[in-house]
Amino acid sequence: MTLQEIYGEEIMFEELKDIVGGENFSDALADRYIYSSDASIHQSLPSVILRPGNTEEVQEILRYANKEKIPVTPRGAGTGEVGGAVPIDGGIVLDLKRMNKIKEIRIGDLLCKVEPGVVNDELNKELKEFGFFFPPTPGSGKVCTIGGMIANNASGMRAVKYGATRDSVLGLKVVLPQGELVSLGTQTIIHSSGYQLERLMVGSEGTLGVIVEATLRLKPLPEKRAVGRAMFYKLEEAGKAISAIVARGITPSALELLDEIVIKSINAAFNFGLPEIEALVLFECDGNKVSIDYEMDKIKKVCQEFNSFSIDISNDPKEMEKIWEARNAAFPATSRYKENLARVTLAEDVTVPISKLSELIVNLHRIASENSIIICTYGHAGEGLIHTSFLINPESSQQWERAKKAVAEVYALTQSLGGTTSGEHGIGISKAPYFKKERSETLEIMRKIKKAFDPQNILNPHKLMDAPDDFFTATKLRYAIKE
Amino acid sequence: MTLQEIYGEEIMFEELKDIVGGENFSDALADRYIYSSDASIHQSLPSVILRPGNTEEVQEILRYANKEKIPVTPRGAGTGEVGGAVPIDGGIVLDLKRMNKIKEIRIGDLLCKVEPGVVNDELNKELKEFGFFFPPTPGSGKVCTIGGMIANNASGMRAVKYGATRDSVLGLKVVLPQGELVSLGTQTIIHSSGYQLERLMVGSEGTLGVIVEATLRLKPLPEKRAVGRAMFYKLEEAGKAISAIVARGITPSALELLDEIVIKSINAAFNFGLPEIEALVLFECDGNKVSIDYEMDKIKKVCQEFNSFSIDISNDPKEMEKIWEARNAAFPATSRYKENLARVTLAEDVTVPISKLSELIVNLHRIASENSIIICTYGHAGEGLIHTSFLINPESSQQWERAKKAVAEVYALTQSLGGTTSGEHGIGISKAPYFKKERSETLEIMRKIKKAFDPQNILNPHKLMDAPDDFFTATKLRYAIKE
Repeated sequence: MTLQEIYGEEIMFEELKDIVGGENFSDALADRYIYSSDASIHQSLPSVILRPGNTEEVQEILRYANKEKIPVTPRGAGTGEVGGAVPIDGGIVLDLKRMNKIKEIRIGDLLCKVEPGVVNDELNKELKEFGFFFPPTPGSGKVCTIGGMIANNASGMRAVKYGATRDSVLGLKVVLPQGELVSLGTQTIIHSSGYQLERLMVGSEGTLGVIVEATLRLKPLPEKRAVGRAMFYKLEEAGKAISAIVARGITPSALELLDEIVIKSINAAFNFGLPEIEALVLFECDGNKVSIDYEMDKIKKVCQEFNSFSIDISNDPKEMEKIWEARNAAFPATSRYKENLARVTLAEDVTVPISKLSELIVNLHRIASENSIIICTYGHAGEGLIHTSFLINPESSQQWERAKKAVAEVYALTQSLGGTTSGEHGIGISKAPYFKKERSETLEIMRKIKKAFDPQNILNPHKLMDAPDDFFTATKLRYAIKE
Repeated sequence: MTLQEIYGEEIMFEELKDIVGGENFSDALADRYIYSSDASIHQSLPSVILRPGNTEEVQEILRYANKEKIPVTPRGAGTGEVGGAVPIDGGIVLDLKRMNKIKEIRIGDLLCKVEPGVVNDELNKELKEFGFFFPPTPGSGKVCTIGGMIANNASGMRAVKYGATRDSVLGLKVVLPQGELVSLGTQTIIHSSGYQLERLMVGSEGTLGVIVEATLRLKPLPEKRAVGRAMFYKLEEAGKAISAIVARGITPSALELLDEIVIKSINAAFNFGLPEIEALVLFECDGNKVSIDYEMDKIKKVCQEFNSFSIDISNDPKEMEKIWEARNAAFPATSRYKENLARVTLAEDVTVPISKLSELIVNLHRIASENSIIICTYGHAGEGLIHTSFLINPESSQQWERAKKAVAEVYALTQSLGGTTSGEHGIGISKAPYFKKERSETLEIMRKIKKAFDPQNILNPHKLMDAPDDFFTATKLRYAIKE
């Protein structure tokens, strides 16, 4: 029974309203609809939305929720694709976007302290003034928040060189489910002072505590960048080139792959005029100004060896921006590939050992073909991560059935290649059934840890290891499915 | 009451003997003495030593120990300086050195799989053949094991560029206290598949599980390295130069500091002929062959700006090795500074935000002087980590009293500068009282996590958050103290 069913939709949580003030409280149906979904396929109405402005308010809210056993779902920008911010049990959605102060930038200590609602690109705009940056580069960087990135362990295209968010979190202030405020980690770039709880918190998807401050490791902005674009007639050869670049000890700062359907989508939607071939590999090197040409040349040679028939390299800022713009257009573009087809976020970020990349891609296309469905493949190939966008008519129950079957096959393929369910999007609701298969050995430990932090199970309940076994019926879907 | 007191020293654990075989079992007093201490000041006799040869044996041992409630202390090479491998409650010492196979080197996936007893430098010797390396570089690399490095979250001088062990662990196989074998993490270079339990395990000092296999992230060996040596009349100026190098966005692969006492010790012990000035800064850059001179030149200019009066730079392999040999001689050399003085491992690896380095060093020398004690300072300055070697006559109770007082002051100073109790050595027994002060907010969470993994408290009990409040009386000391 959901909270709405217990309390009724019209209930006013007067005590909660007092904590955040009337303007930061809403139980209006329109607002509840807005906060009922994120970028996933799921939808579930919260009872109230609270927008706390500081740590004390978060503490008071959690104390109240813990006392009254009300579920609390923390939320950043709502860009998550797996339903992590969907309030599956109703209750409170805790919108943290008001807590958006960059509290300190301490270049001499290689760190900054920020509130969870700071937007990734806005932080990097500030840091640029000092010649530094925060390395994770999610595709949603223009809107996504640091809190959400930490909760999901976001990565993005530069993780091939700079690692994921987990590698850049030095310390966290976290409000525990009972309302207690604790500091985890340190203000130093290394530490061996006990359990690395700040790292446990990264990727815990709001189930263990609410992040109210993060201390992030900064890296110096490179003096120079260059971007290259290599064209391949054969997707498989592109995959092999990517594996070879990595295996020969070259470390690009990005190594991306786009397949033909994605290329066509991007052209159709945004008229980028990309060559419509089986595969396009985009690569970037960054570093000091004397070494870029040397590194780019190494990558170029590998691409040629694997039969790339055309390679352009540029270090002109406008040119480079245009190349990355085309890449970043993949997400919105795929929905425009054909009329009536929409991208539905299903098995979006499967990740395999890098050497298995070609095998993954070839078999993804086989699965698509066998199930008469369209799957676009593109992504952070240098990390072994492939975005597998499913294009279906979301009104057709038959196409959903096909997609569900194909999704299960994609995960089975990924696991058979030694890969993992999620590279950067998290588990939430959508990926939970496959995650639970992959990690069956560790679910009990995760549940014990969850219980140690949150005995009343109020924080983002029924996600990850505790999510329903059928993602498709776990919540309402955001789509009206006809026969 | 210790286990020896309960069972008596002569007891034979027949069932344990059956598991590992007679040649890998010992309860002989001579062996028990050998395994009663590590590189710390502590000593406590185990009841038996077991040397399992495979995962199944580790599982059987833990099942038995869990049933009989016998403490189990996992042990790598015993190079730890805080008593992490000292069996404070007696029981079983689990020597993992026989499990020393490099199981796979998968260059195309940027990873290798090893057993916990593999020695760091031996792994790197193998990896060198492929042009790759495992980045953490502990001073004890010639003998220390990967399992111990993970348990401690070891760092070493290259962490300034490559991070600590925590940043290089992709996956672990761990035997839980009840004997269950679980796989944590992935075989991919990124993942967002649930709680990052492999990162929680790093730095948990053998209190949560026994590591039986590790999947480690590899990095390509740089094409070239160069090492520089900058001399400073003033220690404070050397500290400021180090802070400035970091703040200006230069990323050396090592940035080390030696003070005058350490320099004199190294000369006295090994006749290296180092200039006996207040401070020596050693720096290294690595990368591709076209960029090294450029990067080294930047560092040289910063050192000159802060009044370094002499700077040598070399990329001759023999020369470079000699410079690092002198640096690595610091540890053994300090014990030979003066007759009757020995280095006792106390507050060895305090770590502060990098900009506080000068303030830390100046005040360390003040504390030494006020307490009439000798403290050498050297270490991974680019990470904010300073080794604070205490030189005392370990037979003098008066000098121990002074050292204890000074140690407390060193930690208070570190915490007042926003630093942390341990940068790379861990907490164990020696640092626990100060760690507990620093992390008072999180001790309860750590205890709950410990209990979730190890309800019977058999794995390395009474360490970290559960260690005694007075490190000095926590165990016998390895020294015979006279009046």
